[in-house]
Amino acid sequence: MAQKADDIFKEFREHSISEFFNKNRQMLGYSSMSRSLVTVVHEYATNSLDACEEASILPSITVKVDKLEDNTYRVTVSDNGPGIPKTYVGKALATILAGTKFHRNIQQRGQQGIGAAGCTLFAQATTGKPIHVVSSTGSKVFECDVAIDTMHNKPMTSNMRDIDNGKPAGITVSGEFGNCKYDGGDHSVFEYLKRTAISNPHAEMTLIDPDGQEHTFMRSVETAPERPKAAKLHPLGLSVSDLFEIAHSSQSGRVTSFLVDTFARFSQDKANELKETLKDIDFTKNPRELTWNECDRMVKAFKQMKWIAPDAAHIIPIGEDRITAALQNILSPESLHVIERRPKVFSGGFPFVVEAAIAYGGNSGKKMDGGYAGTIMRFANRVPLLFDSGSCAISEAVRQIQWKRYGVDVESQPVSIFVNVSSVYVPYSGVGKEAIAQEDEIIDEIKLALMDAGRGVQRFISNREHAREYEGKYKTVMRYTSQLSNDLASITGRKKEDIEERLEKLIAKHYKKDEDAKGGETTD
Amino acid sequence: MAQKADDIFKEFREHSISEFFNKNRQMLGYSSMSRSLVTVVHEYATNSLDACEEASILPSITVKVDKLEDNTYRVTVSDNGPGIPKTYVGKALATILAGTKFHRNIQQRGQQGIGAAGCTLFAQATTGKPIHVVSSTGSKVFECDVAIDTMHNKPMTSNMRDIDNGKPAGITVSGEFGNCKYDGGDHSVFEYLKRTAISNPHAEMTLIDPDGQEHTFMRSVETAPERPKAAKLHPLGLSVSDLFEIAHSSQSGRVTSFLVDTFARFSQDKANELKETLKDIDFTKNPRELTWNECDRMVKAFKQMKWIAPDAAHIIPIGEDRITAALQNILSPESLHVIERRPKVFSGGFPFVVEAAIAYGGNSGKKMDGGYAGTIMRFANRVPLLFDSGSCAISEAVRQIQWKRYGVDVESQPVSIFVNVSSVYVPYSGVGKEAIAQEDEIIDEIKLALMDAGRGVQRFISNREHAREYEGKYKTVMRYTSQLSNDLASITGRKKEDIEERLEKLIAKHYKKDEDAKGGETTD
Repeated sequence: MAQKADDIFKEFREHSISEFFNKNRQMLGYSSMSRSLVTVVHEYATNSLDACEEASILPSITVKVDKLEDNTYRVTVSDNGPGIPKTYVGKALATILAGTKFHRNIQQRGQQGIGAAGCTLFAQATTGKPIHVVSSTGSKVFECDVAIDTMHNKPMTSNMRDIDNGKPAGITVSGEFGNCKYDGGDHSVFEYLKRTAISNPHAEMTLIDPDGQEHTFMRSVETAPERPKAAKLHPLGLSVSDLFEIAHSSQSGRVTSFLVDTFARFSQDKANELKETLKDIDFTKNPRELTWNECDRMVKAFKQMKWIAPDAAHIIPIGEDRITAALQNILSPESLHVIERRPKVFSGGFPFVVEAAIAYGGNSGKKMDGGYAGTIMRFANRVPLLFDSGSCAISEAVRQIQWKRYGVDVESQPVSIFVNVSSVYVPYSGVGKEAIAQEDEIIDEIKLALMDAGRGVQRFISNREHAREYEGKYKTVMRYTSQLSNDLASITGRKKEDIEERLEKLIAKHYKKDEDAKGGETTD
Repeated sequence: MAQKADDIFKEFREHSISEFFNKNRQMLGYSSMSRSLVTVVHEYATNSLDACEEASILPSITVKVDKLEDNTYRVTVSDNGPGIPKTYVGKALATILAGTKFHRNIQQRGQQGIGAAGCTLFAQATTGKPIHVVSSTGSKVFECDVAIDTMHNKPMTSNMRDIDNGKPAGITVSGEFGNCKYDGGDHSVFEYLKRTAISNPHAEMTLIDPDGQEHTFMRSVETAPERPKAAKLHPLGLSVSDLFEIAHSSQSGRVTSFLVDTFARFSQDKANELKETLKDIDFTKNPRELTWNECDRMVKAFKQMKWIAPDAAHIIPIGEDRITAALQNILSPESLHVIERRPKVFSGGFPFVVEAAIAYGGNSGKKMDGGYAGTIMRFANRVPLLFDSGSCAISEAVRQIQWKRYGVDVESQPVSIFVNVSSVYVPYSGVGKEAIAQEDEIIDEIKLALMDAGRGVQRFISNREHAREYEGKYKTVMRYTSQLSNDLASITGRKKEDIEERLEKLIAKHYKKDEDAKGGETTD
């Protein structure tokens, strides 16, 4: 018997994360041919937008897709960002779980250090080609090829060459990818970039498609959004392991100063309140001496205390004005209702902000045979989410709303529903980051935002019906003015034309006044 | 400008896979309280079933769930498997991406080397406690605690102690998990074990719930399924990177022998056919000298050639008899239609087999207020999939079928739909392995199986309607036998009772015959 277990365990091995994702590429979003192409564009565009934001640059990004042969494309993405220094280029593009984003509590599009290295893996696996990079930090310019040593998850850099041409800052990455397909429709590169333009009105995005056609989504706002700053964790929702780990790597001398310095909204008063509740814990000792049990009791005590909501300063939503400008610009709706909710916290102690909009009419929704269908545009930290809608908190919130109450039919009306969830930490349901995990707090916030916007649409629809009724009555009354003017002219001996003109003005004024009174509600 | 990029990259770090999954626990299935508890049970039960299968043992597995406090439970799973040798216990339970399964092309429930270590991470993060293990390989027995050093993804083993009590082979793992909830319903531990029993009729599963109640799902088959064997890859669907990597780690002396020895269905004839197509490639050279371009051309040539379908011997489906026994046993349906499809290949060169069943009536489906709702039971390599149905190939196949054609209404009839996908490599859509990626080949196979089973249900339903009509007619005719017998008795002078008896027999025989003729179709 003993031998059996030993036999089985002879096969025991350890594997690198690169081997794992090379075998399970579908988990990174490389699961169908058209999705794979969108995933490549998404990873590079996301990195470019993040880099520009950190360097306070208005992004100009060009995505070029060339068809090399059936199901094989070259994707080239160029930006005007800060560039990548030579010493980091290999790791940044060819090491999984390496990057500047994972460990910082800061709102960015990328947050895992997987995306760009995933593209390199995908190129290697489907065409065997490395990724070509040209990077300029403004003063220094170089180019090279990067690939991944999957067994060890280490970069292999080759053909490194300095270029002395004073190229302005930015990077250009170019790769050849097999098992891809350039498609149209809701899940296309075009749609991805269009939605990126909606949620990033400060960015200029250009697509050069495989037919050589150029599509540019112009910048509609000339100021870069605020640079994201690292946020402090909020005590509500901190897990015991978070607190324990942070305490044990703290440089503070005492538990009290550790708490006040480390966490958001933790005043000296709050520290005193905590001491009152947990009298037997020594708050003068070094935080590295806190036991798991003490951390456990603290986290439970936090939940009994009242806290000011987390500071919104670290979360940079798109903003009502910018969403309005972008949606007006792209959809020209008859009615538009944009809602920005106040920041809330979900379980991990991370604040988040929901923005939602409903656009009705104009180019909202999709034209279908003989009618319309509504469109749901999902975003997380301004990044469009095109896939995995079935497992997303946004889709779930849309599903849970009784749209009939608002006179809205998402199936058959020209409606576009827009939702953006901004957070320092977005809980994605998968490594491919195409859906937000269905946390109750997040679903609830999205529902509240959409119901608020829904009430706006409801007013618009009912006012429009009202207006139509008025229009009908007005026309009916007008139909009799000519006859009435004739009769009055013969009774009073005045000119028929004068009477008719005055009557028409009177009627128009009456109905106009009524419409104005109602009209106040239609624009909000 | 240059400084800006350098500033940004000062924050550049590399992270361990443990850190990553510790922060993104939802990707491993720890996303809601009740799902988290099911995930723990799932990971341990899956490992136990795999271990028993490899050692050809009929599994007896006991899952005990104790409530420690609100949202905190102790989960203890014991099996009668081969045990874990002492030298591997730390890595097996506390290193992510370590195990016996990832690199072998063999059909098992687990395939990633993440599950058990994920449980350890989750226990650490929510209660700070290590996992306690007692392992016996039959001759040697020990116990210890294991935890993960997340920074380095290395095991920390403590309190190791040899036990000299001659305990039979098997392991018992026990951990304390916070952020959990023991629930009932479709997504519960009970349902998980019930479905595991359906798909593993050779296993005995016992649940001791938090109220101390014992539920046992008895073994309904007394033979263990075949032991899984490592499979050769099939040339169809091999990616270039697969071929390139396998060639470059090959021990063969020549390309020809490499191909014939390494891949399934690759005869000498096939090698000759390939040589004819690719005349300029040197098939006598060492396979490690194959270039990417040559591999690329070979993979393209494979797709132009005709191949025998992959051998089903390496895939061990549940089997029609076993599925029938299990579903009869648990659902007692009025009508049951089980379909086993022949093996097919999907893109990765991995063969797979679909089994499907539709049970109608009896305890099929779910009782709802004033009616029924259908149930879809999804399985991959016999493991029940309870979550993420929205992104699963099985759900998608069910959605795509026009059930009306088969007289089935999945929304409102007492129907249970069962689908099991068996493969050496199941393409899960996420690390949490709760959904099968929506590969077209897999969806198509599931649809064909379900449509076949659907035709069975359709015959049953229409025969039952037919039978009801007959029953009606039969009753109508019988109503007149008494009067008719009276009349015939007075005409013929015979006894009324005799005539009536003979008439009834005649009529019954007539209708019985008709039903028999139809009846042949109802059982298939």
